[in-house]
Amino acid sequence: MTRQYISMENLRFLLFEVHEIEKLTTYSRYAHVGGKEELNFLLDAAKGIADKEMFPFFKEMDSQPVIHKDGRIHSHPQLKNIIKAVADAGWYTATTDIEDGGTQLPYTIFAAAHLIFEAANSSAQGYIGVSTGSLELISSFGNEALKKIYMPPMMEGKWQGTMALTEPQAGSSLSDITTAAEPVSDGSYHITGQKIFISAGEHEACENFIHLTLARIKGAPAGTKGISLFVVPKYLPSDDGSLQNNNLICAADFQKMGQRGYATTHLIFGEGGPTKGFLVGEVNRGLSYMFQMMNAARIAVGQTAAAVASAAYYNALHYANERPQGRLISDKDLTKEQTLIINHADVRRMLLMQKSIVEGSLSLVVECLKWYDLEKILDGAEKEKAFLLLEILTPIVKTYPSEAGIVSVSNALQVFGGYGFTMDFDAQQYYRDIRIMSIYEGTTGIQSMDLLGRKVTMQSGKALQMLAGEIMQTIEEASGFEDLLPYSKACGAAVEKLQKVLQYLQSFAIKGEVELYMADANLFMEYCGLVTVAWQWLKQAVKAHQALQKNDIPDHQKDFYFSKLETMKFYFKYELPKTESLAITIMHTDKMTIKKEREILM
Amino acid sequence: MTRQYISMENLRFLLFEVHEIEKLTTYSRYAHVGGKEELNFLLDAAKGIADKEMFPFFKEMDSQPVIHKDGRIHSHPQLKNIIKAVADAGWYTATTDIEDGGTQLPYTIFAAAHLIFEAANSSAQGYIGVSTGSLELISSFGNEALKKIYMPPMMEGKWQGTMALTEPQAGSSLSDITTAAEPVSDGSYHITGQKIFISAGEHEACENFIHLTLARIKGAPAGTKGISLFVVPKYLPSDDGSLQNNNLICAADFQKMGQRGYATTHLIFGEGGPTKGFLVGEVNRGLSYMFQMMNAARIAVGQTAAAVASAAYYNALHYANERPQGRLISDKDLTKEQTLIINHADVRRMLLMQKSIVEGSLSLVVECLKWYDLEKILDGAEKEKAFLLLEILTPIVKTYPSEAGIVSVSNALQVFGGYGFTMDFDAQQYYRDIRIMSIYEGTTGIQSMDLLGRKVTMQSGKALQMLAGEIMQTIEEASGFEDLLPYSKACGAAVEKLQKVLQYLQSFAIKGEVELYMADANLFMEYCGLVTVAWQWLKQAVKAHQALQKNDIPDHQKDFYFSKLETMKFYFKYELPKTESLAITIMHTDKMTIKKEREILM
Repeated sequence: MTRQYISMENLRFLLFEVHEIEKLTTYSRYAHVGGKEELNFLLDAAKGIADKEMFPFFKEMDSQPVIHKDGRIHSHPQLKNIIKAVADAGWYTATTDIEDGGTQLPYTIFAAAHLIFEAANSSAQGYIGVSTGSLELISSFGNEALKKIYMPPMMEGKWQGTMALTEPQAGSSLSDITTAAEPVSDGSYHITGQKIFISAGEHEACENFIHLTLARIKGAPAGTKGISLFVVPKYLPSDDGSLQNNNLICAADFQKMGQRGYATTHLIFGEGGPTKGFLVGEVNRGLSYMFQMMNAARIAVGQTAAAVASAAYYNALHYANERPQGRLISDKDLTKEQTLIINHADVRRMLLMQKSIVEGSLSLVVECLKWYDLEKILDGAEKEKAFLLLEILTPIVKTYPSEAGIVSVSNALQVFGGYGFTMDFDAQQYYRDIRIMSIYEGTTGIQSMDLLGRKVTMQSGKALQMLAGEIMQTIEEASGFEDLLPYSKACGAAVEKLQKVLQYLQSFAIKGEVELYMADANLFMEYCGLVTVAWQWLKQAVKAHQALQKNDIPDHQKDFYFSKLETMKFYFKYELPKTESLAITIMHTDKMTIKKEREILM
Repeated sequence: MTRQYISMENLRFLLFEVHEIEKLTTYSRYAHVGGKEELNFLLDAAKGIADKEMFPFFKEMDSQPVIHKDGRIHSHPQLKNIIKAVADAGWYTATTDIEDGGTQLPYTIFAAAHLIFEAANSSAQGYIGVSTGSLELISSFGNEALKKIYMPPMMEGKWQGTMALTEPQAGSSLSDITTAAEPVSDGSYHITGQKIFISAGEHEACENFIHLTLARIKGAPAGTKGISLFVVPKYLPSDDGSLQNNNLICAADFQKMGQRGYATTHLIFGEGGPTKGFLVGEVNRGLSYMFQMMNAARIAVGQTAAAVASAAYYNALHYANERPQGRLISDKDLTKEQTLIINHADVRRMLLMQKSIVEGSLSLVVECLKWYDLEKILDGAEKEKAFLLLEILTPIVKTYPSEAGIVSVSNALQVFGGYGFTMDFDAQQYYRDIRIMSIYEGTTGIQSMDLLGRKVTMQSGKALQMLAGEIMQTIEEASGFEDLLPYSKACGAAVEKLQKVLQYLQSFAIKGEVELYMADANLFMEYCGLVTVAWQWLKQAVKAHQALQKNDIPDHQKDFYFSKLETMKFYFKYELPKTESLAITIMHTDKMTIKKEREILM
């Protein structure tokens, strides 16, 4: 039997009981899908692929990593089977319109399948995620010719899509990209420059690589307003179906500490001959297009972090249930056999911490996915609300699961003791894999500036008000149950203090002291993450509490709901109070992180 | 020039200004050493070895790790040169009495040299640390015959010493070791059993391996009271100097996530023939002897963690001073060049966090080393005080640098952005290397139980009183300076709240609810670590403040002391307030980590 890496029971609880995703099928766009049963069937099928094709190769794709050797990328042979299995099952076209040959599923269900894949083998899922993201970008903004040529082979998993943003001199600062595009007579562009850290930029499982590339057309305005988006294929498809050299070289790869099965490449455009690129949408609007993909990618990174932390948690839980060691403090009788480590309070604390982070993160992910779907379906004020909630939640859902996930996986490793540090066990791989999540698609620093600098301030704070409104609604619901009252109160108090913190920060912004306003954006983010996940736990607790009030539920379901309530309590005891320290720190009068005349860093 | 991995200026500040280690030379045992100048000369010499022999091989010893292949361990060829250079410079015999052929240096200076080695190459230093620890154990408790035979080649670095405690079924639970010792007619014992995770258990740089092995003599009482200590050599030395097979097999190694240059082995005793062992000291007192080595080893682990975090910090600081990226929030002018990342507030926050953890940890390490020395020199009540302070500080100095160090190094990696995750940069190696420190020599869970269960309660709380007394004395000193008053007050408030927390916990102990008393030992440890390091920062601030009041100091020294004051403030703003959340959590009425009838972990 495959070792557990995700709880399907929990996933179903989140999708259908907490976030009521099946309601999406009441909208005409998804009416053809059926209901909960059909969605469950799809998820079980995804789990089958993950069990068979992905999870068994999780470790091997790490120990036999992707590598650039002899002038080309060598990847694990299983990657081809994985991509094929996922494409054959229709997951590459799951969100594509039926008339374009897709299955037109809710994005949430598509992402839930990805979540299962990520928990099974996050490196492998990377290739799929970036290809489907690229597909959506071409589908949304490409012209008919681009769609016709590039989408079908990408939808079959034969061609790999990528997003090519980063350059050596411009990591987080996209304003400074210099890759150049020069228009040529046939309407295409010649692309010259270099891109680094291009995930899935080349490997052996696909025939062609379609790089959605940001570049600057000669004479374009400086900064982000002068960036255009191009489809740049490694090989140019001819009318007869053959592939022609496009002078796009994968010059090297980056060997990484984790996600070693996921190719990270260095691409060179236009050396040794012209590299053709094709404009997507309008000139100079590239970054706004890319942000569609990037917003989805940011949710996906948070989701992947939650998935990796999930796999690490079940791995540690399994071990704790099998490993005897030591005796309870209250019963040190040496003549008795050693107890299982799951019985030690500190091991239980480490496991409950993981469970509270994993299930809290997953609930937040599903919350965001729901709004991602609704934003596309709804109209008017409802659409606006979905848009604003997504705007403010995106940096949080990228960051909380990544940062808390790193801590969670570290605790998973710790449960194994010395074994956790050895390559024989998987804990260390999860520990290495998850570390990139706070860097991918904008570091935690970048996300925090996005949250405090852009999202909190947008439309005079409307997005934050929307979020606070949603949280207050859950608090109100929870307050209806006496057992939940202490927790709804605690959540309310944390929201209230957050407002105080924000007012404090805004006093700097009002004075024009923007550096001081932003200096502790990272801590503000941590605060928001903690509160947002407290909200998600309260949501889960309400549903669990309601379910437990029914008398006719079977014992194992009772245990499940009871476990939810206890894990919520754990979160409110061990995690949420961290907001208290954060508030003290943010509102501390000492300010020493702003660079002054005299350098203190030595 | 060698890249910086440690600040000798800071080390000297801690040794001589803050902890006044040169005063040790006023005691007769160390009178021959000279004074500060001589000690400085020794440290500079150690730095020379580290620069030349150790740091240049830091990366290579990771990428070409120790490995068990073809029936034996293969280690990096440089290891032999490292051991030779360190032994030739006299560091293997630095603490040995002059009459026994040593240099009889203060332990603190010996450990300071180790600290330099650890920052340069923690894997390499491992071999030296475990050998000198074994030497001290034989020297303290071995009979003359053992000393005569085993010490000289170990002192020359020709033979490797190890400590062999852990067994597959008994990791943290030493009560459960089963390795057996059967007395034979010649006064020696036949040892049978297996030991795992034996660091430096075999490699190519030494001729023989002397395992200080815990085993149970047939018929010994159960638990830790029935454990004896043995010298078990891989090869038995004959009178003619030749080495004879002792049937001690290195059966395998453990490939690890980090410290890959440090051999971790699996030993089998007494298979294919008898393995001889020689009793050290008295029967059944093995664990108490081993604790001498283990206490020093625990300080050494904390010290190594601080050293690794130091190396990672200077690595990140160097990068931040060279890497341009983005623009200041207050000056987004795109026509200007990108700014160095060290100018961004969030990068500065990450660097200052590292500096506050590294220098705070190092100060705590030197504090403990000082008491380690004094405990050996002093008599009567003074000796008792030193003993008690060491007892209570040992679990803390093992844990704070390890746990905070992991966070510190993670922030170092984050400073590099995507590059930090690549194998081309060293950040990821530090990240992998330091992760073991919270597991080595008793996990954080074990240390926390030691602190709250044993050290806090010993002699009716006398050790904790001693520590509180020391802290109060520093608070008083700091309160004499108006600028330091807010920080001495904050430290005092944290100590006061700690007492409240402890009273709360003791209410459970009084009722006999020991599981509840101990359930959050880990958080109690975190609290104690934060306060203890706040104390160390206050100590440093007092000295820095005093120094700045002198008018005739050169500018670069002024900068150094000013930087100390600012880093102290950083710690008091960003780190110490974490105690507030910890207190809330520990005193929260919900208790869900004690195992109850109904399992909530699923």
